[in-house]
Amino acid sequence: MSTITGHNYIGGQRSAAGTVIIKSIDASTGEQLPYSFHQATVEEVDHAANAAAIAYPAYRSLSAAKRAEFLDAIADELDTLDDDFVALVCRETALPAARIQGERGRTSGQMRLFAKVLRRGDFYGARIDQALPERKPLPRPDLRQYRIGLGPVAVFGASNFPLAFSTAGGDTASALAAGCPVVFKAHSGHMATAELVAGALIRAAEKTGMPAGVFNMIYGGGVGEALVTHPSIQAVGFTGSLKGGRALCDMAAARPQPIPVFAEMSSINPVIVLPQALEARADSVALDLTASVVQGCGQFCTNPGLVIGIRSPQFSAFVQQVARLIGDQPAQTMLNAGTLRSYGQGLQKLLAHPGIEHLAGNAQLGNQAQPQLFKADVNLLIDGDEVLQEEVFGPTTVFVEVADQAQLSAALHGLHGQLTATIIGEPADFEQFGELTALLEQKVGRILLNGYPTGVEVCDSMVHGGPYPATSDARGTSVGTLAIDRFLRPVCFQNFPDALLPDALKDANPLGIARLVNGVSSRDSQ
Amino acid sequence: MSTITGHNYIGGQRSAAGTVIIKSIDASTGEQLPYSFHQATVEEVDHAANAAAIAYPAYRSLSAAKRAEFLDAIADELDTLDDDFVALVCRETALPAARIQGERGRTSGQMRLFAKVLRRGDFYGARIDQALPERKPLPRPDLRQYRIGLGPVAVFGASNFPLAFSTAGGDTASALAAGCPVVFKAHSGHMATAELVAGALIRAAEKTGMPAGVFNMIYGGGVGEALVTHPSIQAVGFTGSLKGGRALCDMAAARPQPIPVFAEMSSINPVIVLPQALEARADSVALDLTASVVQGCGQFCTNPGLVIGIRSPQFSAFVQQVARLIGDQPAQTMLNAGTLRSYGQGLQKLLAHPGIEHLAGNAQLGNQAQPQLFKADVNLLIDGDEVLQEEVFGPTTVFVEVADQAQLSAALHGLHGQLTATIIGEPADFEQFGELTALLEQKVGRILLNGYPTGVEVCDSMVHGGPYPATSDARGTSVGTLAIDRFLRPVCFQNFPDALLPDALKDANPLGIARLVNGVSSRDSQ
Repeated sequence: MSTITGHNYIGGQRSAAGTVIIKSIDASTGEQLPYSFHQATVEEVDHAANAAAIAYPAYRSLSAAKRAEFLDAIADELDTLDDDFVALVCRETALPAARIQGERGRTSGQMRLFAKVLRRGDFYGARIDQALPERKPLPRPDLRQYRIGLGPVAVFGASNFPLAFSTAGGDTASALAAGCPVVFKAHSGHMATAELVAGALIRAAEKTGMPAGVFNMIYGGGVGEALVTHPSIQAVGFTGSLKGGRALCDMAAARPQPIPVFAEMSSINPVIVLPQALEARADSVALDLTASVVQGCGQFCTNPGLVIGIRSPQFSAFVQQVARLIGDQPAQTMLNAGTLRSYGQGLQKLLAHPGIEHLAGNAQLGNQAQPQLFKADVNLLIDGDEVLQEEVFGPTTVFVEVADQAQLSAALHGLHGQLTATIIGEPADFEQFGELTALLEQKVGRILLNGYPTGVEVCDSMVHGGPYPATSDARGTSVGTLAIDRFLRPVCFQNFPDALLPDALKDANPLGIARLVNGVSSRDSQ
Repeated sequence: MSTITGHNYIGGQRSAAGTVIIKSIDASTGEQLPYSFHQATVEEVDHAANAAAIAYPAYRSLSAAKRAEFLDAIADELDTLDDDFVALVCRETALPAARIQGERGRTSGQMRLFAKVLRRGDFYGARIDQALPERKPLPRPDLRQYRIGLGPVAVFGASNFPLAFSTAGGDTASALAAGCPVVFKAHSGHMATAELVAGALIRAAEKTGMPAGVFNMIYGGGVGEALVTHPSIQAVGFTGSLKGGRALCDMAAARPQPIPVFAEMSSINPVIVLPQALEARADSVALDLTASVVQGCGQFCTNPGLVIGIRSPQFSAFVQQVARLIGDQPAQTMLNAGTLRSYGQGLQKLLAHPGIEHLAGNAQLGNQAQPQLFKADVNLLIDGDEVLQEEVFGPTTVFVEVADQAQLSAALHGLHGQLTATIIGEPADFEQFGELTALLEQKVGRILLNGYPTGVEVCDSMVHGGPYPATSDARGTSVGTLAIDRFLRPVCFQNFPDALLPDALKDANPLGIARLVNGVSSRDSQ
């Protein structure tokens, strides 16, 4: 394993100009790890953003095939991060080794998937309208469009995915794929992990001849504002809290030149348990739902934080069953002390609310998170009480009982935007509750039938996004190949001779990509 | 021609609750026209936004084919707007009849093009990743993605295109195509025009059985804030000034739920005249450029406001030639008194600046706009002086002479974001100035070779967008079929039985659209 120096990565060099030292913490013991990280100074933030801006013209001009080589090389380097690395990530996050091994594979797989997107070429969005010199009353000029990267992207890593949503995670992968250099702000919860992953990225950049500054990483608290307001930064990717994400959005919107922010923030991921499913398989639903609630100590953006069912003896029995299961779940160590503190505060709000009843779970004490179950009055949803809309990050969920189908609709209408919604049902349920899909489509980015929202597949069809406050822009996703769209913009060429056009738009179609030619999709040369 | 009542269109009804009356003005004489418009009250703005929100679930659930019928019916109704209508538009805008006739055709053509997009189906962005139940270590669920409309869209019409960028213009067409009901805020410069076009839209909605509230229109000043901050509004389209557009962006970003705004605002559309072109055809370039500057009284977003050339006797002669031509151009009537006032103020700023020389044009007096020509010191661009970055809306342009190729690059680097850039050159120029395309790509939405930026083709490949301040979001366009993307968001279905999926994602591909299936583009059934 490489030595951890705690220096920032700026323009292909290491930099440690600052005197503020931050320590990484063992998440299980709370002890300091033997690494010292130099918080980036304002000048270093400036240098990092400028390094990315200097790299941008060269990097974006590389062929997509060359950028794909870089992403594949990153994937290969990630795969070589060994057991010592996994052990270090586990120390910083208290996540189990199997999870980190899986996440490492997911992260390198994600890079390879974006390499595939680059070779496939549909990200170009290539469109050609050939000249119509004889058209009356006016001739049509030759017009061609493709998409290029926006420019340097600032990425803020998540606490809960030290690999897949961090240094070399989905935001970085999609930005690099789009041709955008990255300035990554390491999360304070796993800075040693970030350093080793950044080392892998830099090795891959050097091996494949990328411009210095294609990837930069800075440490520290309070550096986010300097980064987001830097004139060279052209877009922001963020995964974290509503408060943090909204603050970045507000800063970005108030810049002299506003820039787009994709912030993935807050979701309670409702699960709707329908009557026939309870009739047919209440036991297995109770087991699977409980497992999803406590999986990874509930530290997932898609953790099911709300379960809705229709009043019946079966639903009452189901609630009791889940209460028993939750009561039996062991306490788990959270990602860091701040996360545990937030969990405790979230539970306090639920416990203190007169419309919410505590159903199961040991008192929240000590340095681990106790799984908890609550039941809330449906009117809290219908009347728009904020208490149920706020994500409580951790191993807890809230049951809501509705009187009937009409009240179910009313309750769902009361929800804010979500990453996911899940329907647990049998065919007879789907027939009876046919309106649910259309209603949920307006609220969420992903609807699941008979599954659980934790576990987000990285593929072309995934949407890890949704209406506010799930994200800051429902048009994007931070997981899956569509994530690249956030960092691309169209450019049109009018009346260009073939030789001066980018390869994606040349008559001969040298890249062999699908293009919309005179309104018809085609892979042919023209 | 229908009677003009001056009542707002809200939820399929006419509404005139307010007591503030606004008059439409004859742009040529300054006299009031015999129509009285009722400024919408805050309650009426609320009703209009709510009417759109109520229409949304029904409207978005219609098949794309049904929405295409609606757009085609709008186009047919627009085509029936007769000579009396054209005469009225001319009175309100002082634009010539031939231009309005052309714009009518462009506006109905735009509607038909979006109908074609709906039938083509690529706007769905359909993606399918089939289940891999045997995959290790975890099976992959079935995942499918398509795109739906964001919700009600607020559209602010432009002064300078009373048809193509107004009531039934590109923003309205793309929003309606996306499945988004519209609340249109009529421009004070052509309210009678707006009423007649809105009547055409409503007739088309009734004929094709659209839900009431699919299109709403309100009159008045100061109603924009109530509209943009209304919780039902989910996106904004705007064409107008930097000040107005930025104000809407700031309001939208400060909402409890921020929403996307596409504002097309300010562009000076540089034209770069290269040496060999001057050698070969200075006369025709001077004629064509002058025509583009004064066309339509210079009242185009893409009006060439900056012309850059390299110091040489030929360039000096060319400047003199354009100066003579501009000096010969007649004064023209502008769209309205406010536009003329702004033009005068813009000229005053140029005249007062010590780094800018006045080359041609009669003193700006009376009620018409006098074409003007200026020459500015290149250091104003290089040093980032704001005076050249600000669009002066009207028949004027500014020449800038650079010392050499390096200074040309420096000057272009100094530019803010633009809708367009134009290169006038011969093949030998393109060879010598090969770096220009890559440089301009970073600054603009559309690059033209040997053409003029005025005249924006409506087609798949057009980009009428660009980096700030040309627009508020470089990822969008307000002309061309890609405009629909601004109002769409992806939704993912996980593990849905075929019968419950939208048609766009069903195995049999009943719509016959192109889809990305397991990473491969296909029109097949699965």
